[in-house]
Amino acid sequence: MSDLLRLRPAATVDMIAAFDDAATIACACAFEAALAQAQAAHGVISADLAQAIVAGIDPARVQIAVLADEAALAGTLAIPLVARLRAMIGGTAAAALHRGATSQDVADTVLMLQVRNAHRLLAVDVRRVSDALAVQARAHADRPATGRTLLQAALPVAFGLRLAQAARGIRDALAMLDTAVADHAVLQLGGAAGTRAGMDGKGAVVAAHLAATLGLRAGAPWHARRTGVVAIGAALGILVGALGKFARDVALLAQNETGEAHEPLIAGRGGSSAMAHKRNPTGCQVALSAATRAPGLVASLLAGLPQEQERGLGGWQAEGPVLADLFLLASGSAAALAVVAEGLEIDDAAVSRNLALAGIGDDIGESSAIIADLLGGMKD
Amino acid sequence: MSDLLRLRPAATVDMIAAFDDAATIACACAFEAALAQAQAAHGVISADLAQAIVAGIDPARVQIAVLADEAALAGTLAIPLVARLRAMIGGTAAAALHRGATSQDVADTVLMLQVRNAHRLLAVDVRRVSDALAVQARAHADRPATGRTLLQAALPVAFGLRLAQAARGIRDALAMLDTAVADHAVLQLGGAAGTRAGMDGKGAVVAAHLAATLGLRAGAPWHARRTGVVAIGAALGILVGALGKFARDVALLAQNETGEAHEPLIAGRGGSSAMAHKRNPTGCQVALSAATRAPGLVASLLAGLPQEQERGLGGWQAEGPVLADLFLLASGSAAALAVVAEGLEIDDAAVSRNLALAGIGDDIGESSAIIADLLGGMKD
Amino acid sequence: MSDLLRLRPAATVDMIAAFDDAATIACACAFEAALAQAQAAHGVISADLAQAIVAGIDPARVQIAVLADEAALAGTLAIPLVARLRAMIGGTAAAALHRGATSQDVADTVLMLQVRNAHRLLAVDVRRVSDALAVQARAHADRPATGRTLLQAALPVAFGLRLAQAARGIRDALAMLDTAVADHAVLQLGGAAGTRAGMDGKGAVVAAHLAATLGLRAGAPWHARRTGVVAIGAALGILVGALGKFARDVALLAQNETGEAHEPLIAGRGGSSAMAHKRNPTGCQVALSAATRAPGLVASLLAGLPQEQERGLGGWQAEGPVLADLFLLASGSAAALAVVAEGLEIDDAAVSRNLALAGIGDDIGESSAIIADLLGGMKD
Amino acid sequence: MSDLLRLRPAATVDMIAAFDDAATIACACAFEAALAQAQAAHGVISADLAQAIVAGIDPARVQIAVLADEAALAGTLAIPLVARLRAMIGGTAAAALHRGATSQDVADTVLMLQVRNAHRLLAVDVRRVSDALAVQARAHADRPATGRTLLQAALPVAFGLRLAQAARGIRDALAMLDTAVADHAVLQLGGAAGTRAGMDGKGAVVAAHLAATLGLRAGAPWHARRTGVVAIGAALGILVGALGKFARDVALLAQNETGEAHEPLIAGRGGSSAMAHKRNPTGCQVALSAATRAPGLVASLLAGLPQEQERGLGGWQAEGPVLADLFLLASGSAAALAVVAEGLEIDDAAVSRNLALAGIGDDIGESSAIIADLLGGMKD
Repeated sequence: MSDLLRLRPAATVDMIAAFDDAATIACACAFEAALAQAQAAHGVISADLAQAIVAGIDPARVQIAVLADEAALAGTLAIPLVARLRAMIGGTAAAALHRGATSQDVADTVLMLQVRNAHRLLAVDVRRVSDALAVQARAHADRPATGRTLLQAALPVAFGLRLAQAARGIRDALAMLDTAVADHAVLQLGGAAGTRAGMDGKGAVVAAHLAATLGLRAGAPWHARRTGVVAIGAALGILVGALGKFARDVALLAQNETGEAHEPLIAGRGGSSAMAHKRNPTGCQVALSAATRAPGLVASLLAGLPQEQERGLGGWQAEGPVLADLFLLASGSAAALAVVAEGLEIDDAAVSRNLALAGIGDDIGESSAIIADLLGGMKD
Repeated sequence: MSDLLRLRPAATVDMIAAFDDAATIACACAFEAALAQAQAAHGVISADLAQAIVAGIDPARVQIAVLADEAALAGTLAIPLVARLRAMIGGTAAAALHRGATSQDVADTVLMLQVRNAHRLLAVDVRRVSDALAVQARAHADRPATGRTLLQAALPVAFGLRLAQAARGIRDALAMLDTAVADHAVLQLGGAAGTRAGMDGKGAVVAAHLAATLGLRAGAPWHARRTGVVAIGAALGILVGALGKFARDVALLAQNETGEAHEPLIAGRGGSSAMAHKRNPTGCQVALSAATRAPGLVASLLAGLPQEQERGLGGWQAEGPVLADLFLLASGSAAALAVVAEGLEIDDAAVSRNLALAGIGDDIGESSAIIADLLGGMKD
Repeated sequence: MSDLLRLRPAATVDMIAAFDDAATIACACAFEAALAQAQAAHGVISADLAQAIVAGIDPARVQIAVLADEAALAGTLAIPLVARLRAMIGGTAAAALHRGATSQDVADTVLMLQVRNAHRLLAVDVRRVSDALAVQARAHADRPATGRTLLQAALPVAFGLRLAQAARGIRDALAMLDTAVADHAVLQLGGAAGTRAGMDGKGAVVAAHLAATLGLRAGAPWHARRTGVVAIGAALGILVGALGKFARDVALLAQNETGEAHEPLIAGRGGSSAMAHKRNPTGCQVALSAATRAPGLVASLLAGLPQEQERGLGGWQAEGPVLADLFLLASGSAAALAVVAEGLEIDDAAVSRNLALAGIGDDIGESSAIIADLLGGMKD
Repeated sequence: MSDLLRLRPAATVDMIAAFDDAATIACACAFEAALAQAQAAHGVISADLAQAIVAGIDPARVQIAVLADEAALAGTLAIPLVARLRAMIGGTAAAALHRGATSQDVADTVLMLQVRNAHRLLAVDVRRVSDALAVQARAHADRPATGRTLLQAALPVAFGLRLAQAARGIRDALAMLDTAVADHAVLQLGGAAGTRAGMDGKGAVVAAHLAATLGLRAGAPWHARRTGVVAIGAALGILVGALGKFARDVALLAQNETGEAHEPLIAGRGGSSAMAHKRNPTGCQVALSAATRAPGLVASLLAGLPQEQERGLGGWQAEGPVLADLFLLASGSAAALAVVAEGLEIDDAAVSRNLALAGIGDDIGESSAIIADLLGGMKD
């Protein structure tokens, strides 16, 4: 029941793996094990019990297909998973597992662990795009080219100016995502009603310990306060759109009659099943397809904000798959455009020919200074 | 690299299967085989070649994981798939495969075959919901209950009126979907630029033949005319919302202080990992989660409408996964609510107690007649 | 406090008027007057009272700015409006006004009256677009031109094929809207809790009478069953997108290096505040801007579907402005593109030059037959 | 042609004024006058010309209705406005107006001036909400109440915990908006193609001077780099959702059977046109209606990100009305909820009764400490 044919054209292998079943189970098991250890460190459970829990949990023994059915029935992953982990652990330690925690503590912490991992993966490819664009922009900081506004020739620009603008937009969007993840990838540990009852008054210190172990921020429970999740999703949506801006520009430049730039030629990429002569802007296709899908996904996250009471019904349960989709789309877009930006073929003759045709002279104004301003802080 | 833990809580097993890799490959192979046969029937290729093609295609021999990587590289599924099928077929027949067709012909026809199959699956569960609601509504067509507006007690209604309203909304939304699928599940066969070049002037008859074989409507190519796809998606969005209306009502009725109705008790469902006493409205959770996600997905489909030229860049490629997601969410919602509607437990004492508490008398106006009007054509 | 500078560039004067304050008050007054007459016709109130009501209501005497403040305070337009109308009417007739009706009956019926009027206005301009496209498509049904897919030259098409595809998409979308309005522009008359209490058991016949008077469909109350409203909105969203497809194509054709078609030259339109030589595709701008905004608006309507109980809190109140916005955007797009389609300037020399440059021959396949198929039923 | 009846129930008078025609014209005139002064300060035009420009511009003489028609025809506000201002100024100074600027420079700077003003207005009401919630939360930091998850009684919480969570979410969302406005309310001054040609190489210093005068950030032109605009819009969407969370909770608490809290009683507010006994949660209605609409609006902004080239076609033109709508909705929601939060009536007896009914004891865990944590930095 795989759906790789749907996922792979839109996302990287690594990002698919960051959100696949194995990753989910691994994160959930890490939460449960680290919770026991944190509770032992603060005397909520004994060290022996914690040790038995850690020793007993084996993610590889979880039967995913069966667990998925059980989770669908239960309405939550944690109940059947905890039951299976308890069976693995056995003895008195089994009962100490998941102490004071609720299903959503697991679900939200798993999501945040995946967010953190996904963000790291994504940032690498996004930086490849903006760095390559910066290099190209600097190389073409003085070359006059046709500036186009409202899809019409306007006044000359430096060819590099458009690339620098794209680079800046992408880098700014990444900075927003960096901030959102740093601020909002927070451990969830509130217990059934978000009061940290059932942890002998040690909830806050256990949470701080657990957050440090897992590499997440500590903070008050946020079961029904989803502003952070949505901020991460909105930043992803902005990033996908900023990447889409560069893709749109390359696709327009690559039109036959324009011909100023092309995606690099890669064996097996961009062909047509019907036309051997064609060279499709496939990297741009991936990015523009992502940019078509992302706005609606962000809207879905926003729609979930008015959560009911201590932990809502339906709203937060909708978030995980949507946030995963946003990371998947962003990964595919960034990876595709990294290749495009690094190998972008610029046809200087076409640039000059089109500019002459437009009959708008060659005064590029302060293009070069603006490029330098836009690229501040980017790779030289 | 499966993601069942994300899919299963939101969708039925059958619907997941309708859009999984095996189903996609099966549909694509069916297209290619039937195309060859249709072309042979009209003399575009010889009967021998068609027979060799049909005999040579074996969906089971397609290595999905490798193909997914190839499709991601190529930017389209059809190119690597056709190459693999040609290798299976061998000889002169290999070259006759996919004649006159383009990648998007395969992609769009596969999508429409999946739409048709998915619609059939979905309609069964949706009818279960509306039929069960109709039965319950008729059984409570005269029972006075608190009518609530703006979340405040207003005037009395028949308890069945709310159920009948939900039933009518769901049934109307299904009718919209029925119409959309009947009108817009159209074969795609236009060739590289949508002109049906390369089929010896037999494009129209081949298309009609092929459509009949595959059980789809015939029509002009629609590569960049996506109104039909979006109409199907919009109908799904409306259906998910109409189901959500019923879920919202049950969840509100099931609140502890209200207690007028509850989801049926099902072993393993609706429990809490932290509170043994709880009985969560898990069916409603599934439906409300779907209703949170669907509007954004419909927006994504709409965003793709302004396609470029003969076949666009990025817009149509975004549709398949989004339409699949809408069917998946609708399936999960309908199946969950079928169980809820069929087993809905109504607490007559609580209904009466709340009505008395509201102090609004018991005049249900024309509730019974309105219920009969709303349920016209539904199961008795 | 007008905001014409924001509305006018996006909408026609007539459509703005269809949803402005005067139109809203006129529709609300028409509802109240016709309700009294319908109730008198069926003996719910006396003929004298009805006559006094009809005579007493004067929309011109409603002070809109004050009423707007009152409506904002009350949370509904109907309460202060009914109070003002009662003051106008005076005597015993005042108390008979609005009998058995609730605020939402007024609000929803007003909305549907505006929908019906707006649909009529819109359909005229949309047909102008599709008819003009049909004429142009037939005139260019045999002229070979560059077919473009994924923004790259692909195979030849008849120049008229792209126009015919756009025409068909627009006409199909209009047909969806026609159906949605015909099916779902239904009178709202349910009373406080949707039971038609308070009308002496005559609710159904009064509703039928009232609907006939107002030119709306009759039907059961639909206070919390909003599938019809959303269906109208979704059809509008599809229409705006279908119009956007044509706009995208014209804007691409009009690029300097391509130059195959241009918007007609109109004094005062498409200029640049900085560049006298420019000729911007302003009609396309209006349409593409609308197409950027519409998907999110449809998502907003869908989000309101899971209404609570008999009449919800917040969901339906969100619909009116959103549906108005969709009609406004559609009107602006259709009117702008009617001008573009009717005056589209096609540069045959550029078409031929680009085709020669692409080096893909001139076989347009079955373009002409497909055009005829697509234009079936459209203006000759 | 006013549409106050649509705007007022959703927005404050002040916010409507911040985006109305008069405000738009005032901002545009301020831009043109300050541009001339900045250019004079750096020798681009003479001080005499600048003085004549400043003296000649009179916003009150702009005929708005005619200008709106002209702007609709032109496809941009700036062209007819500049023409009218030049006619006012007369002489040689007329030609020096708008030097080096393009239409979008005016449009974007006007938008950012309105954003800055709107943000100031909004922040006041938002702080009123969070401050009032903080006060109430602290006052109820130890009172046991029913905690509810998935709309079912779960475990006890301090009554103030839910309020503190809402306060924190709202305050965090406001902080995101503060940051977004501080970072992205940037002057636009790039000229026709974003190169600052036509300003004698003084573009950067003129822009810095102009930004300082207008109270906006200085920065490189961002005509087609819209990440900042969307970041502001996304923050508004998150804020509207966070406000909606509080509204949802109050509406649920105010249900008749629950009755733990109510909106304050205000003459003329929350009545029913059909039921004198009713007390509708009208403030919540405004906020929930806004929360229904906002996600789609944010999606519309995101959809415009892949702008074409130096200045795009349709994308950025869509932003102004959408961003205005988001501020309008946020203002209405915040103002309505400020009243609700400041006057929230809590029924201690109902709180206790419901808790006893739930039979879940009264252990509120670490609620009080969590409340203190959540309210850090808020009004005491």
